[in-house]
Amino acid sequence: MRGRPIVPGGLLTDLYELNMAASYLRRSMTGQATFSLFIRTLPPGRGFLVAAGLADCLRFLEDFSFTADDLSYLRLAQEYPEKTLRQLARLRFTGDVRAIPEGRVVFAGEPLLEVTAPIAEAQLAETVLLNHVTFQTAVAAKAARCVLAARGAQLVDFSFRRTQGIDAALAVARASAIAGFAATSNTAAAHRYGLAAAGTMAHSYIEAFGDEQAAFAAFAGDFPAMTTFLADTYDTGRGVRNAIEVTRCLRLPGPVGVRLDSGDLAALARMARAMLDEAGLADAKIVASGSLDEYAIAALVAAGAPIDAYGVGTKMGVSADAPYLDSAYKLAAYDGRPVMKLSAGKTSPPGAKQVYRGPDGDLLTLQDEPPPPGCQPLLVPVMRQGRPVSAPEPLAAAQQRCRADLAGLPPAVRALRDPVPVPVQISDRLKILQDQVTRDLRRQAGIQRGPLAS
Amino acid sequence: MRGRPIVPGGLLTDLYELNMAASYLRRSMTGQATFSLFIRTLPPGRGFLVAAGLADCLRFLEDFSFTADDLSYLRLAQEYPEKTLRQLARLRFTGDVRAIPEGRVVFAGEPLLEVTAPIAEAQLAETVLLNHVTFQTAVAAKAARCVLAARGAQLVDFSFRRTQGIDAALAVARASAIAGFAATSNTAAAHRYGLAAAGTMAHSYIEAFGDEQAAFAAFAGDFPAMTTFLADTYDTGRGVRNAIEVTRCLRLPGPVGVRLDSGDLAALARMARAMLDEAGLADAKIVASGSLDEYAIAALVAAGAPIDAYGVGTKMGVSADAPYLDSAYKLAAYDGRPVMKLSAGKTSPPGAKQVYRGPDGDLLTLQDEPPPPGCQPLLVPVMRQGRPVSAPEPLAAAQQRCRADLAGLPPAVRALRDPVPVPVQISDRLKILQDQVTRDLRRQAGIQRGPLAS
Repeated sequence: MRGRPIVPGGLLTDLYELNMAASYLRRSMTGQATFSLFIRTLPPGRGFLVAAGLADCLRFLEDFSFTADDLSYLRLAQEYPEKTLRQLARLRFTGDVRAIPEGRVVFAGEPLLEVTAPIAEAQLAETVLLNHVTFQTAVAAKAARCVLAARGAQLVDFSFRRTQGIDAALAVARASAIAGFAATSNTAAAHRYGLAAAGTMAHSYIEAFGDEQAAFAAFAGDFPAMTTFLADTYDTGRGVRNAIEVTRCLRLPGPVGVRLDSGDLAALARMARAMLDEAGLADAKIVASGSLDEYAIAALVAAGAPIDAYGVGTKMGVSADAPYLDSAYKLAAYDGRPVMKLSAGKTSPPGAKQVYRGPDGDLLTLQDEPPPPGCQPLLVPVMRQGRPVSAPEPLAAAQQRCRADLAGLPPAVRALRDPVPVPVQISDRLKILQDQVTRDLRRQAGIQRGPLAS
Repeated sequence: MRGRPIVPGGLLTDLYELNMAASYLRRSMTGQATFSLFIRTLPPGRGFLVAAGLADCLRFLEDFSFTADDLSYLRLAQEYPEKTLRQLARLRFTGDVRAIPEGRVVFAGEPLLEVTAPIAEAQLAETVLLNHVTFQTAVAAKAARCVLAARGAQLVDFSFRRTQGIDAALAVARASAIAGFAATSNTAAAHRYGLAAAGTMAHSYIEAFGDEQAAFAAFAGDFPAMTTFLADTYDTGRGVRNAIEVTRCLRLPGPVGVRLDSGDLAALARMARAMLDEAGLADAKIVASGSLDEYAIAALVAAGAPIDAYGVGTKMGVSADAPYLDSAYKLAAYDGRPVMKLSAGKTSPPGAKQVYRGPDGDLLTLQDEPPPPGCQPLLVPVMRQGRPVSAPEPLAAAQQRCRADLAGLPPAVRALRDPVPVPVQISDRLKILQDQVTRDLRRQAGIQRGPLAS
């Protein structure tokens, strides 16, 4: 099937996950482990994130297995013993997953995903789960900021050429669609995810004709219902004039578009709007592109630039000012026992958890705490015993959640500059447990010397 | 075969490339086009880049074709006419490619790749070629800066969990290996590219045992020849002591390692070194990790921290301070005619080119200019008539080129902070041609009104 991971199989993980899993299997350590996947802190300048990546995680877990080639590599290159290889050959993901659905606005410290499974299985999944959620959540948040900045103007994903790889481009098209983008230039992504595909023409098309008006006429002849003229190859004023003349002479049926890709976009948009209106093309659309992000879009909106749609590329597609999130996948419980680490600056609360969203913000609790009045649980079961609890949901569901959550965000949280994230409170029971586990670990550190101590 | 692109076929491109190609085919515009792929300007803080991504480009071009499913999408969703679909069904990449080999140090304005092919074919390849070269060149440069900072200490790619997607992780492992990294934690990449795989253990392993010494003993029992103990789960001093005790009690055969992953790495490394030396484990290695990049590594080296190897993850894997390059794929000639655009701030020299490297820097020339004395051409033929000119080269060839080029870089160019890039000169003939094409375009802009003008 198209669109499966490029290297299916169990080697898509860090070697240490494999080594740990091998060790667990060899020692018959089959206890249930719960891992929490969360973002430790928001990047500077981010007031919120948008959960994304879950669909790829579920597909990965559902398909997880070792191919004969994987096992052969582990035998020859890593010298795994035959017994371990036989155990790995049989290994599938058989655990449960609870997650915050895609499209929801989320904050630092909230588990986006909790995996409960035999520890070897949960450990092997760490790398890919972190990869999908970290990247896609970062991009969905960046795209959502562009949507907020655009104040209703349409956004199109133009990022394919500069995303960090090919599957990143597919993920960006999908994540930006969740966040509210109207279309993508990425044809493969449009096909795969059922998105609207959008595109205009490149400067090279005009240069190949040599004559801008001839190029416009040719393109409009071939694509009369969807013509957007790229106006800045030689001179934007002349480009708009040529677009107008071609539109008139060919009597194009639908509204045409004019795309501005360089220069002072606000001034050029005003000029183009005036020229188009004067020519009786009040329904013609103006599309702006070129190094745009939420800050540039907000500036154009603030300047009153008459721009109908923005092509947003690289800076959204790599989340340029926050290209990664400080994500973690931490063991929270093993074999019925809550655990945590004490590493400097990297502690996290123990135990399986729930996040409740209420009118006063979010509350992080233990999984089995009753919901506070008027609050909604964010983590829901998405996989049981290795199978998804339901068929993949349509993208529209995630889009709708994102739209609703963005609309409900207080202005200080959704602010593009110096936002103030929603505070995440920790329940009393969770605090008590965290203190108790910390005390126990500190006491052990003082007195316990381990079985090998003399 | 494993490792092919996740969505093979001709839809892996922006819609406008398809629309332009369809238009060219319909109009029988089959003239040869030359496109130059180059980086317009270096990102702030970069004195050089390292060419990478070519191998993926060649594979893409060699495999390029439209599947029946691709054509069905274009028929139904994009309403392409049957004649165009038949032309696309037959379309393969039949052109020539000249490129700067992977691993070479390169600068802004130098074509990393020049494609000469019937214009529809060359146009369709734009998006994926830009994607591979932009990302992989950015990461190889970032990795090379880490190598320079480490002054001979070993580097290991730990980035898989936070790269922007799965194929990005594979590409990062390979690009960082080209730049001089010794190993990767990414098992799939190690298998695919024949790299050394490296890995230690995670905090979760220790937490699952509850007792650090028991965990160390178990792991060392399972992997006696490759044990690196993660020391900071609870307290680094105690962790190192436990590592020493386990190493002694189990009489481990090879040199062990101790990994420090949080806190003041320089101070902890000194402490660990002293403890290991005192315990008679002078051959034990110290591995540092945790938010490292070239700046952090340089600071640790400058502080004289006794660190033998660095695990470098996210910041290298997403090229965090320069997550994209200002790359372009520009039509330079069509049908024997040199072309360029005049768009504000985005012009580039016309014509097919060569880059000559000499003792005084690099010279950008027209393709057919004779080499200046003592200079070496950087662009070499890599594909003729759609077929690679040779079998894929071993990664060692790119590694060796990178090592040699880095060794030859002047200190000001290789400086981590405020570097001064090598100046790229433009030959007189290229300058004259650029002036002439600019003049011609400006004159046209003044006098020519196109065939539709009244």
